[in-house]
Amino acid sequence: MNEVDPAAGSFAVRAAELDAGDPLREQRGRFVGAADGSVVSYLDGNSLGRPPLSSARRLEQFVTESWGGRLIRGWDEDWFDLPLTIGDELGGAVLGAAAGQTAVGDSTSVLLYKLVRGALALRPGRDEIVLDTDNFPTDRYVLEGVAAESGATLRWITSDPRAGVRAEQVAAVVGDRTALVVLSHVAYRSGYLADAAAITGIAHDVGALVLWDLCHSVGVVPVELDSWGADLAVGCTYKYLNGGPGSPAFGYVRAGLLETFVQPIWGWMGRADCFEMGPGYQPAEGIRRILSGTPSVLGMIALRDTVAMIDAMGIAAIREKSVALTGFAIELVDDWLVPLGATIASPRDPQRRGGHVTVDHPMFREMTPVLWERGVIPDFRAPEGLRLGLSPLSTSFAEVVRGLEVIRGELAARVR
Amino acid sequence: MNEVDPAAGSFAVRAAELDAGDPLREQRGRFVGAADGSVVSYLDGNSLGRPPLSSARRLEQFVTESWGGRLIRGWDEDWFDLPLTIGDELGGAVLGAAAGQTAVGDSTSVLLYKLVRGALALRPGRDEIVLDTDNFPTDRYVLEGVAAESGATLRWITSDPRAGVRAEQVAAVVGDRTALVVLSHVAYRSGYLADAAAITGIAHDVGALVLWDLCHSVGVVPVELDSWGADLAVGCTYKYLNGGPGSPAFGYVRAGLLETFVQPIWGWMGRADCFEMGPGYQPAEGIRRILSGTPSVLGMIALRDTVAMIDAMGIAAIREKSVALTGFAIELVDDWLVPLGATIASPRDPQRRGGHVTVDHPMFREMTPVLWERGVIPDFRAPEGLRLGLSPLSTSFAEVVRGLEVIRGELAARVR
Repeated sequence: MNEVDPAAGSFAVRAAELDAGDPLREQRGRFVGAADGSVVSYLDGNSLGRPPLSSARRLEQFVTESWGGRLIRGWDEDWFDLPLTIGDELGGAVLGAAAGQTAVGDSTSVLLYKLVRGALALRPGRDEIVLDTDNFPTDRYVLEGVAAESGATLRWITSDPRAGVRAEQVAAVVGDRTALVVLSHVAYRSGYLADAAAITGIAHDVGALVLWDLCHSVGVVPVELDSWGADLAVGCTYKYLNGGPGSPAFGYVRAGLLETFVQPIWGWMGRADCFEMGPGYQPAEGIRRILSGTPSVLGMIALRDTVAMIDAMGIAAIREKSVALTGFAIELVDDWLVPLGATIASPRDPQRRGGHVTVDHPMFREMTPVLWERGVIPDFRAPEGLRLGLSPLSTSFAEVVRGLEVIRGELAARVR
Repeated sequence: MNEVDPAAGSFAVRAAELDAGDPLREQRGRFVGAADGSVVSYLDGNSLGRPPLSSARRLEQFVTESWGGRLIRGWDEDWFDLPLTIGDELGGAVLGAAAGQTAVGDSTSVLLYKLVRGALALRPGRDEIVLDTDNFPTDRYVLEGVAAESGATLRWITSDPRAGVRAEQVAAVVGDRTALVVLSHVAYRSGYLADAAAITGIAHDVGALVLWDLCHSVGVVPVELDSWGADLAVGCTYKYLNGGPGSPAFGYVRAGLLETFVQPIWGWMGRADCFEMGPGYQPAEGIRRILSGTPSVLGMIALRDTVAMIDAMGIAAIREKSVALTGFAIELVDDWLVPLGATIASPRDPQRRGGHVTVDHPMFREMTPVLWERGVIPDFRAPEGLRLGLSPLSTSFAEVVRGLEVIRGELAARVR
């Protein structure tokens, strides 16, 4: 129905120009299905990134050669240090973290629990944890659980669901009772990009620690944990890092805290001299102490390919394309969906916007399965948001136009 | 040096006969490297099982078709229920557990922590946890951590490191202060097989709960959680279930406890109606409530092949071969290694022996890397144990002879 729509035509022409000038355009061919039209438009790379082609080969090779060939010897030769090796790769490529402060393992929820508990133990006598109402759901739930068991009080900042937590809101609630501030760097729904350096400073001014959830920023927005002075961070690797469904999380603990940092799940992989299996738990030196059980080696393979790709391209180039993609999507939404009653639920200011854009409309809940069926794949976030996640390495401007054309058609059919 | 040794010859002849009569012999061809002599002798299938051939193909297919093709839709279509689907498959094939009580996720250490914490909350007013000195190391460390944070007291049973915990030892320490008993069904070092039904009954008689660590028994020894009346269990899937390095663990909570069971890591995957992402944590119905974060889907793929294989062969046939393999290994050790000063550190009674045999000698620590170099791969357990793990689906009797010949040669060269 859009064949003769001049606006569609002009957006398509602009998309073609933008794609032709995109310095990252060659990268799309390195992801399964990104360039071959297997779906019409994948707009959820912020929830589950596409598989790198190299990872499919690498996984098969891993099974036959490493697991099948080296067998148990693989642990001594390579796998035992992988959580720290890949942690350092992440630190250098996407976290702004010097070596020795990042490790990979567990899920985001479990690592968050461990780091929050460890942080509270570093601030005895302080009994408040600051968070916000639009924080990533698992962070809210995990913190409720920690509060229930520890007696800590949660101090909720009511954040604007179409924006996020501002530094002055944090300044208004922190004080000498604050043990820890836990916030998302990029809000999971609105995509609001918090001022991490300013907020970290505000928390430090009252003696509190800060933990950043980087799930929606790592790999798409520059992160500078060391220069922010962040104390702790967690994030997942299956969104913009393309690690695959349920690939392990990463955790960061600032070097200056490590010597006295103790997390509550005293598993064997975080123990000093773990292969001796002797009596009594003693935490390992350095960041290894945040590990507990045997980490998923299979789950760590794919994300390395993307981290290497990001490192080669540079996070600045990725951010530049991300801002262009989200800005272009907002133009399309303004032109095509706002006249049908949709509203933009993300920051228009690119300085405060992460890698995704959310659009609200009461019809979007029922529309989402229809869109998926048609090969246009955003995701839905309650109560009425269509979230468009635009992974810069694997998404083209043309794909954004194709997706929004279908969304426009489906929405128009429902509201007219 | 054994070419003309008549004992070696006669053991080799017996091994050939045993292999020819082995009803599971065809299964070896279904594992990477098991039948093609890629190593001389793999004696560590109890620590890291070999990859099923089908899993290598299935992983590649998963990456290109499921992850790459279905993208985020895979969560709705299939992956969301996998932890429970595979949990039920495990329950039926290898745990003796009716559906709805088992879920897959996390590592053994993390799941153990969560289930222990949940169990303590069900026994308020009781402040002791019973365990033994030769329990699986991560269990000892995790329980030390729980004791440190909760104020619970650990009641240690001093177990014979060449045997394990006897029912009467448990009876002697449990009482009305006992909240929970945590023991390994098969001891990680000696291979001692505990009398799980009797011990569970003894703990229940005083009102305590029982958690079984099944890491070294699942898939090789019949487990009957429901008929034992066990309350809780955990285990890993990368040993006799061949899930691959760091594949996720499983946890079991008896149906009668589930309604009031709450674990401390309140992640989104264990919340009721989790995709709504609404305010406030409410545990999901049933066994899903033991989940926290997003589980590793890649890590769950391989173990399904082995669980299906075990289900088809029947755990009784696997146990029968396991007893024959370990009995044969003991004969070889008696004949070849005991005269060189080695001692058997595992039960001779097959009724009390799991799937592995440990042999002690002061030379074994320095010998292990040499053996690995020569393609004979047991593992070493401090202080001086060579642990021979004989995975029935992928190990032949001939392989046991080949391995022990090399071990004998290396030991003889050191003690003579």
